[in-house]
Amino acid sequence: MSSVQTYLQEHEERFVRELCDYVHFPSVSAQPSHAADTRACADWLLRHCREIGLEAELWATAGNPVLLARTRRTPGARRPHFLVYGHYDVQPPEPLELWHSPPFEARIVGRSLFARGASDNKGQHMSHLNAVEAYLRTGTELPCDLTFLIEGEEEVGSGNLAPFLKSHREELRCDAVVISDNGIPSLRHPGLTYGLRGIAALEVKIHGPARDLHSGLFGGSVENPAMALCQLLARLRDRHGRIAIPGLYDDVLPLSAYERKQLARVPFNATAYRKFVGVPELFGERGYTPLEQSTARPTLEINGLTSGYQGAGSKTIIPAWASAKLTLRLVPNQEPKKIAKLVTQHLKKICPPTVRLTVEPGHGGLPYLVSPTSKLAQASLRTLKESFGHEPVLVRSGGSIPIVADFKQILGADCLLLGLSLPDDNAHSPNEKFSLDAFAKGMKMSACLWPELSAAV
Amino acid sequence: MSSVQTYLQEHEERFVRELCDYVHFPSVSAQPSHAADTRACADWLLRHCREIGLEAELWATAGNPVLLARTRRTPGARRPHFLVYGHYDVQPPEPLELWHSPPFEARIVGRSLFARGASDNKGQHMSHLNAVEAYLRTGTELPCDLTFLIEGEEEVGSGNLAPFLKSHREELRCDAVVISDNGIPSLRHPGLTYGLRGIAALEVKIHGPARDLHSGLFGGSVENPAMALCQLLARLRDRHGRIAIPGLYDDVLPLSAYERKQLARVPFNATAYRKFVGVPELFGERGYTPLEQSTARPTLEINGLTSGYQGAGSKTIIPAWASAKLTLRLVPNQEPKKIAKLVTQHLKKICPPTVRLTVEPGHGGLPYLVSPTSKLAQASLRTLKESFGHEPVLVRSGGSIPIVADFKQILGADCLLLGLSLPDDNAHSPNEKFSLDAFAKGMKMSACLWPELSAAV
Repeated sequence: MSSVQTYLQEHEERFVRELCDYVHFPSVSAQPSHAADTRACADWLLRHCREIGLEAELWATAGNPVLLARTRRTPGARRPHFLVYGHYDVQPPEPLELWHSPPFEARIVGRSLFARGASDNKGQHMSHLNAVEAYLRTGTELPCDLTFLIEGEEEVGSGNLAPFLKSHREELRCDAVVISDNGIPSLRHPGLTYGLRGIAALEVKIHGPARDLHSGLFGGSVENPAMALCQLLARLRDRHGRIAIPGLYDDVLPLSAYERKQLARVPFNATAYRKFVGVPELFGERGYTPLEQSTARPTLEINGLTSGYQGAGSKTIIPAWASAKLTLRLVPNQEPKKIAKLVTQHLKKICPPTVRLTVEPGHGGLPYLVSPTSKLAQASLRTLKESFGHEPVLVRSGGSIPIVADFKQILGADCLLLGLSLPDDNAHSPNEKFSLDAFAKGMKMSACLWPELSAAV
Repeated sequence: MSSVQTYLQEHEERFVRELCDYVHFPSVSAQPSHAADTRACADWLLRHCREIGLEAELWATAGNPVLLARTRRTPGARRPHFLVYGHYDVQPPEPLELWHSPPFEARIVGRSLFARGASDNKGQHMSHLNAVEAYLRTGTELPCDLTFLIEGEEEVGSGNLAPFLKSHREELRCDAVVISDNGIPSLRHPGLTYGLRGIAALEVKIHGPARDLHSGLFGGSVENPAMALCQLLARLRDRHGRIAIPGLYDDVLPLSAYERKQLARVPFNATAYRKFVGVPELFGERGYTPLEQSTARPTLEINGLTSGYQGAGSKTIIPAWASAKLTLRLVPNQEPKKIAKLVTQHLKKICPPTVRLTVEPGHGGLPYLVSPTSKLAQASLRTLKESFGHEPVLVRSGGSIPIVADFKQILGADCLLLGLSLPDDNAHSPNEKFSLDAFAKGMKMSACLWPELSAAV
């Protein structure tokens, strides 16, 4: 094992050069003008995987190809199998004028490598590829089988990933999926993201009079649909963020004392956070910290409101209708369809008889949780401590990552989210960068990870 | 007096022909292409007034000319003076394809004269001109001085009327202004509109985070401005329409028992009304009839709501801001500026500290009331009974007519709203018509009016 770590240290300069080559491809999946660049990027990745000793293929999909690269299997051996997920496509670089150097020409300043895709996600999955190269080149036996699945459509919604997983279900069956495509608070706070929130979307519409009415001639005897909507929505949530819909919290798995203690260790500066978001005062459900509120508690958000006249000046009407786009963020073990039904039923119950209500359910996504006390999670934490040299944090993310649910649903595998991105990496923004220290720590982490995880299976 | 009425009956056919000539002018003030037609219409009206024996002039304004036509004054006599207001401009006729005959070619079917402007307002003020012609041609002495003020920009907001009133303040000073530019329930229910609602407009905006935020990553610890807006607005009104703002009803002049009795006499079919507006159930402040609710009680209406994402599908954001356009309809003696201040103060008081509130006051208009027991109102009611042969109704209108406030403010004169338009006249709509019976009754009414009003001054 020490030879693997020595190899990684000795070849770091070359790894950085190879990452520079890799980010040189403008593999912008959202822009058809970059289709050839994206394909060239996939070809580069294929060659690279073969060069380091993996059995690699590009698999055609309805969109960009998926790369599968696997370690040579030992015939007859029944070893743990882990999947490493990543994506070779990148966000569009626009607005170009805000970049301090061309987005697809790597620029190294101190220990930062600036380029589109450096952090999201090329640098992160290259850490894992470099670690496996070290195993293979030093002849160190891996304690497990590994398959790299690196797709080219993550930034446009991974639309072809689920069908691919389904058609390759047998060979992709694994003990866990390792994903480094997210962030950690700092290099002194390496972290395992063990929970994600789910989502349930709804569109609520209040129908009033058959047409916009003159508010002078009719106002007072006909309900105003915009007011009816406000009064309905106002009753869905208290003033501190707690959702006021019967049954909504029934399936919520409470945060354990262990989780709360771990979440409290994540560095958080309330003043800096408040200033960053630009609000006069923070907000949130009583009895929970801001981090708990935004990652581990359900929320109900109005994403949009539309009614009546929205131009300059005023138009004295009772609008014919009013509508709102809602999303609820869900936590384990809430179920999107059940939650959408609860919201709909409650709205129907409290809607006044003077207007008509329609509710259209939108997309849904399951929340995700790996028990932080599970063997795999604990093995991940040990790996983080060993490789980063700091006590790791256990974190949840308030967002939803649909592919995580796909891996769970199609392959039956848990995901271990071991991000390497730092808060100032500017992912999706101009001047994206990747920390070369995170790169080095990431390789070290990946090398440590396989013995730990294999022992935990 | 009987000779005046006889004259009106004997010349009715000619009056109808003259109205046909008058509506032939497409005096559409909103459409620059009809500028010459509008001017030609004013010239026709000027000639007509002079022909019937009035001293008439067209007065230039920044827009279309104002016609002033007065009865010859008796030197030295100090008699009551009444102003008759009307407008020779008309609404655009579009959509033309919905007309059953060309809008500017009068078509008579039974006792209806179809043409744009027939009811609004050419037919109505011609009733008054015909009555004064009858006085003058039969040598019957008028008990008062009369001035006709007929403008050409009512349908585009009467923007040049207030300056005109100011610069002609002395010669227009009068005991009352008679306006026939509104409606009555039916010919069996002639009416005096003795009250109008005022208005106060406001734009309310809730400012949240500095930019739209990812609802997954931030939701729960940052207030949602759209929800904050809904919760604020929801608290401004109860579920039945009563406004929940401290002090808002302080200046409301309660409806008297006499008024409520009179309003109850106005024909009203709740089922037909509900079907006409197209709502599942009527609505309104407890303890008041729909007619009282929509004409004699203050209301708070949301005219428009805007926040966040309004396109197809969903966008998972906490919107940076949310705004609402509000108007309050006011009743005597509420004052728009004071009301706007009360609303603003209350909003500021109940706005949570997690968001920032701005309120921008918009236009305001005073409510209007002539005491229904005043001598002038009672004289009007006697006139209506005498001329229509039916017990008149006392009505209020829920809308606002800004010129009424102008007459009161600039000339100090009350307005007597003695409309001749019927509910099926299609004012502002295709196939506008004027009832020839209303035309005849209107002339009779006008002839009766001057002795009654003069005696009441």
